[in-house]
Amino acid sequence: MKSDFEPVTVLIDYEWLDAINWNKDGLIPVITQDKRSGKVLMQAWMNREALALTASEGRAVYWSRSREKIWCKGEESGNIQIIEELRTDCDKDSILLLVTQQGSIACHTGRKSCFFEKYNGQMWETVDPVIRSINDIHHK
Amino acid sequence: MKSDFEPVTVLIDYEWLDAINWNKDGLIPVITQDKRSGKVLMQAWMNREALALTASEGRAVYWSRSREKIWCKGEESGNIQIIEELRTDCDKDSILLLVTQQGSIACHTGRKSCFFEKYNGQMWETVDPVIRSINDIHHK
Repeated sequence: MKSDFEPVTVLIDYEWLDAINWNKDGLIPVITQDKRSGKVLMQAWMNREALALTASEGRAVYWSRSREKIWCKGEESGNIQIIEELRTDCDKDSILLLVTQQGSIACHTGRKSCFFEKYNGQMWETVDPVIRSINDIHHK
Repeated sequence: MKSDFEPVTVLIDYEWLDAINWNKDGLIPVITQDKRSGKVLMQAWMNREALALTASEGRAVYWSRSREKIWCKGEESGNIQIIEELRTDCDKDSILLLVTQQGSIACHTGRKSCFFEKYNGQMWETVDPVIRSINDIHHK
């Protein structure tokens, strides 16, 4: 008969994480796409821990290269990204997240997508509007 | 009066290329999306020359990290990607191409998109079909 305090061994299959071709810094580029609209929202990075957390928590968790730490997207702004699909590519060196973007804003500038600058044949031109003022939202 | 053989000075504005935050290897990650369907087709890399060529030729030109050379997408397979929009993000460290994919196939495995492996909660699972057999197309 089992004691209430008997340690429990949990077997976790990490093969799917081992299968990823992490770069020399232990990172992989991640594309985040809004599942409903198809809009590409942002491109960020994950390390092994961030990818494991994204899968287990069902929300996007990245690795911040500038701050050198795990970055739970939306932890300050509330603009959480709920994972609908988690994909990788033929070389397993890129991740695609299909998400539901809470708050409709992925970019810290208050725009839907970070890709708001378009090449007009001569220069980069801002083509998408700010939905919510940068003063109203926390940075990332 | 001008001589027919007088040299012509062409001023080319490279500020838009200088504005890009190239990584320490002089590269930038590129997301390629089918403009009509919204499907994310692939993720690849560009150096400065590849980005300049993409803009001037109006078709996707990447930097192949494995072959260490300029890679004109579709030069062998015929699956050229016509540029409809060329965008960058708020940090200017990622590129988004909106394209028309000729031949409807972006992946060398004969699938529409390279992102055909989906995490099913335990492992990566192939979820998208091969449209054209790998024997029928040239590799990349």
